[in-house]
Amino acid sequence: MALPEGYTFRKLQLSDYETYVENLKVLTTVGEVSLESFTELLNHWQSLPELYHPYVISNVEGSVVATGMLLIERKLIHECGLVGHIEDISVSKVEQGKKLGYHMISSLTSIAQELGTYKVILDCSPENVGFYEKCGFKNSGIEMVRRF
Amino acid sequence: MALPEGYTFRKLQLSDYETYVENLKVLTTVGEVSLESFTELLNHWQSLPELYHPYVISNVEGSVVATGMLLIERKLIHECGLVGHIEDISVSKVEQGKKLGYHMISSLTSIAQELGTYKVILDCSPENVGFYEKCGFKNSGIEMVRRF
Repeated sequence: MALPEGYTFRKLQLSDYETYVENLKVLTTVGEVSLESFTELLNHWQSLPELYHPYVISNVEGSVVATGMLLIERKLIHECGLVGHIEDISVSKVEQGKKLGYHMISSLTSIAQELGTYKVILDCSPENVGFYEKCGFKNSGIEMVRRF
Repeated sequence: MALPEGYTFRKLQLSDYETYVENLKVLTTVGEVSLESFTELLNHWQSLPELYHPYVISNVEGSVVATGMLLIERKLIHECGLVGHIEDISVSKVEQGKKLGYHMISSLTSIAQELGTYKVILDCSPENVGFYEKCGFKNSGIEMVRRF
């Protein structure tokens, strides 16, 4: 499934600061993130390129309209297997209906598979189960949380 | 809640190779993990001490009887917040009834809180929800998986 013309799936970059932060506000509390904090965080992620794989979809103007993080964990189980964690998926509200979420999930899943993971996991709210099933995922457990 | 006398909650170390690998077989497929692979993996985890926090409980003989991994992820959301992922909890079948699982979860949760995370999350099967509720966790979503 192709992206709309002029839209690009690509790695997060420093010039995405404003629209990346703005886009994530669709998802949850972001709070104040200065350019300095963003730069430091992006440098941290880029210093661990086997672990953190932050991606975006940008539109014709180059603005971020969807986000997604693929975190690769090295485990001992499954013969020292790799697991991909998909985190922080967000799609701009004004860009709904263009299958950007589907494209983001499919792309991150393909990257995880190419990197040799034996599975990709993510947590979602019950109302999003149907969407992830369309992306080829299956219900496999319960997410539990403890907040501080 | 104290551990049984002579039992210790501590970081995973190289000399745990055999009993660590054996203990994880309670949980899932481990497959063949040579001492060389284990050494390489432990070195990798130890080279990323802000990220990987592999812990064990050992018994009087020094054998691993419970395992747990705390993975700390740096996010942008929540003002560049930290999230703790609890992974690969296993308790030896012959050591059940000593609250080792409870001790492991409580200890990893405390470490995550000390490290400044805003939440700790984990995935479990429906039959373990009650156990994690006793550990102070709440149901917060659905785990979805895609296996390769």
